[in-house]
Amino acid sequence: MDGIAHTLQSRNITTFRIEVFVLNRSSLLIIYLKLNFTVILADQKSNQIPRYCIFESLNWNMQTPVEGFSKLSKEEKIQWIAHNCTKHPEATKKLLQQYWNADPQLQTVHDEFIENTLSNYYLPFAVAPNFLINGKLHTLPMVIEESSVVAAASKAAKFWHSRGGYIAKVLDTEKVGQVHFMFHGDKEALHRFIAQIRPKFFEDTQVLTRNMQKRGGGIRDITLKDKTNTLPGYFQLHCTFATLDAMGANFINSCLEQFAKTLEREAEAHGVGLEILMSILSNYVPNCLVRAEVNCPVYEEESNSGVSLNFAERFVQAVAIAQAEPYRAVTHNKGIMNGIDAVVLATGNDFRAIEAGVHAYASRKGQYSSLTHAQIENGQFKFWLEIPLALGTVGGLTSLHPLTKLALEILQDPSAEALMQIVAVAGLAQNFAALRSLVTTGIQQGHMKMHLLNLLNQMGASAAEKKELIGYFTDKTVSTAAVKEGLELLRKK
Amino acid sequence: MDGIAHTLQSRNITTFRIEVFVLNRSSLLIIYLKLNFTVILADQKSNQIPRYCIFESLNWNMQTPVEGFSKLSKEEKIQWIAHNCTKHPEATKKLLQQYWNADPQLQTVHDEFIENTLSNYYLPFAVAPNFLINGKLHTLPMVIEESSVVAAASKAAKFWHSRGGYIAKVLDTEKVGQVHFMFHGDKEALHRFIAQIRPKFFEDTQVLTRNMQKRGGGIRDITLKDKTNTLPGYFQLHCTFATLDAMGANFINSCLEQFAKTLEREAEAHGVGLEILMSILSNYVPNCLVRAEVNCPVYEEESNSGVSLNFAERFVQAVAIAQAEPYRAVTHNKGIMNGIDAVVLATGNDFRAIEAGVHAYASRKGQYSSLTHAQIENGQFKFWLEIPLALGTVGGLTSLHPLTKLALEILQDPSAEALMQIVAVAGLAQNFAALRSLVTTGIQQGHMKMHLLNLLNQMGASAAEKKELIGYFTDKTVSTAAVKEGLELLRKK
Repeated sequence: MDGIAHTLQSRNITTFRIEVFVLNRSSLLIIYLKLNFTVILADQKSNQIPRYCIFESLNWNMQTPVEGFSKLSKEEKIQWIAHNCTKHPEATKKLLQQYWNADPQLQTVHDEFIENTLSNYYLPFAVAPNFLINGKLHTLPMVIEESSVVAAASKAAKFWHSRGGYIAKVLDTEKVGQVHFMFHGDKEALHRFIAQIRPKFFEDTQVLTRNMQKRGGGIRDITLKDKTNTLPGYFQLHCTFATLDAMGANFINSCLEQFAKTLEREAEAHGVGLEILMSILSNYVPNCLVRAEVNCPVYEEESNSGVSLNFAERFVQAVAIAQAEPYRAVTHNKGIMNGIDAVVLATGNDFRAIEAGVHAYASRKGQYSSLTHAQIENGQFKFWLEIPLALGTVGGLTSLHPLTKLALEILQDPSAEALMQIVAVAGLAQNFAALRSLVTTGIQQGHMKMHLLNLLNQMGASAAEKKELIGYFTDKTVSTAAVKEGLELLRKK
Repeated sequence: MDGIAHTLQSRNITTFRIEVFVLNRSSLLIIYLKLNFTVILADQKSNQIPRYCIFESLNWNMQTPVEGFSKLSKEEKIQWIAHNCTKHPEATKKLLQQYWNADPQLQTVHDEFIENTLSNYYLPFAVAPNFLINGKLHTLPMVIEESSVVAAASKAAKFWHSRGGYIAKVLDTEKVGQVHFMFHGDKEALHRFIAQIRPKFFEDTQVLTRNMQKRGGGIRDITLKDKTNTLPGYFQLHCTFATLDAMGANFINSCLEQFAKTLEREAEAHGVGLEILMSILSNYVPNCLVRAEVNCPVYEEESNSGVSLNFAERFVQAVAIAQAEPYRAVTHNKGIMNGIDAVVLATGNDFRAIEAGVHAYASRKGQYSSLTHAQIENGQFKFWLEIPLALGTVGGLTSLHPLTKLALEILQDPSAEALMQIVAVAGLAQNFAALRSLVTTGIQQGHMKMHLLNLLNQMGASAAEKKELIGYFTDKTVSTAAVKEGLELLRKK
């Protein structure tokens, strides 16, 4: 116990705040107990004794940062969180433990993915079957929390199955990384210097690139870029890589940091005055590009092999709007990413990297715009997508997370290029389903139907009540208020 | 059994392929069994009997789409996936079941989030303590699979705790939605018509907006926008909303679809020829904006209350590069999103919506650029972020996913505005940690140290081996090859 303090406030109300610091040296924790007692006094002149004593709050409250938290055991961390951040510590502990896996060894693998893991956050692991891609049927594993994404994917898969399926093609697989540095001397001399030491970049990274080279990958190119028009003195080594079935972040960053060391060493040796600022891969990969497409004939009426002219025209117009209007483009592309991220997550890839690269690509022409395109030409409806996707099927989580391994197996253990095609198709399919709803029935009908179960669960409906109300809402509009009312009515029966 | 076929191939090798179609009418499944027998014959002229009979493969292989998959039970779906898409069906079933929760009722809640759920995909649920935000300490729940993100957040929290902490402010909370329609008549007349029917939009949505209005929210404004310069005949009702603590997607979409119905009805009644194409919210919310900042004095040497001039200058330059160069900006912002998405996921918000809105905002000036800014002015280092974040703390998953509820409790049950501040801080902190590494030690040192455990788990290292090798790599460079070598050496001892 290190200190006690109490304060007096206002005229008629006195708050005693008892602050207790407890230093628990064994667990490196400083905890701090705050008790507030508010005493409402009578007017001081009347000299009466306090009439009320209100016990305001008793909570463990951190006012000083916790030291050495990362070094605590998982149980100690949970103990700390439960008592310092939640109202019902025992319930918190129970809840976190309830999500642990029964197999301690498997749980350890998941705990060690990152730091300070307390439990497992569940996202639904689902599948969307019937994707015909380049003539071959695929079942897509999808990890996503948003209702209707998997249902939409499945619908779009079935729709195009009878119309020739999806066609996907990888256009290129170039990865990018840069060494950023400042140089204020003679530009011509810098160009000569970099050309002169160029072989050393390759030599010094041999130990890193050996394995990748054996399999046909490695460093593609290293070029000096003068960026002084954007920032005085700013130059880059712009480097490109082939990383085969690996996403390649660690490989690229390790190469780049070696390039930086080589550059620094050689600059010193040659008396070239430059300052290296940083070395890092880029998640912007406009030459790691994949294209996915669907097409079919346009008829007067929709059939199993084609689409109706009215639908095709409305669809093409909806895409044109997403190309013209950024407010619409953002949501349009968000829908594409619903499909993409679901497969990216399931296959253990990094969705932040994919998101950043794709959205930057959507803005490459100076205005944020649609990633998909649609047209009617010579009686043929065509809808396609071209996006950068730097994906891996080896390394990272792909061999660590058992469900990621399973997801890749469900996809028949694809190469990185095959996965690029599948993921692009997931995006195109999702966009197709969303636009189809939007230009026909509207998005809410399907979405709220899907959301109905969530609402019912939230309201604590029993299995029997759910069954009853799903039937009831077959031909009615779902809204939170309507579901609540429906459940109340049912219970009054 | 609908068909049997066998084929003969090559001269000396005969493959019998027995193809069996089984139509299981009760479960609406068409399954297709392919058995390959390869028989290597002796030279046909020698007239010997076959010497080898190799049983090549037995797999369930889908050549026709599966019908009615979504209507199967979870167990039937797993049965189908295991036998049709994986090599070891029994292992697949066991693995998927291994990830189920022991509590069937809790599992049902998670199963019903979306469609075709087979199991739970684990993402680590972790915490980063010590975030001082607007004078109050917070522990941030983070859901993320990437190693070093939580560690970096914790470091950045501690770093700024002694330097005054984070300052965050919500600038506005305006949500957006649009009704898109085509109109080729007199523009002036259209403006008059919309002004005339404007009250009807509000009247017709009363049933939807009543509850939101009671709490101070609802429809903010409805304006007609002429977009014919981007696309012939294209107009919008551009609508803004206040959705308080809800993200508001369902509310906004329901309002918009009613606006569309009203518009269509009134247009018919008034003989105005327009065609409504679609109605949907926008994930681009440049006026749902939050700002987060850190600042401290610049000294010659780093101290507990300030940063060193050398560090501050390198840091400011690194941010300037991310502002000038899109290749760098994408990765820079990706790092910000590591922190943002981790809290967005933990609190049950939709990370695709956040990603799309934030990246589009990063490109709003015509070139994709950094979301953070840094400067040194009057001896003060300042680093800040301004981003659009449409978040909710009620509705959606927030009340359905028990760990999301807990995450919100750990954050002291914030309002949507308070959550915007916390999430923005998580992004700023992550970017600070990444840039601090980049301009000092480089990113790989910390990252690979964090990744070491993953690599060891992947290679099947025991607890004792892990302990030994973590010690060994304290002062050595971590790479996949080096870890493999280290483990092999240890095992040879």
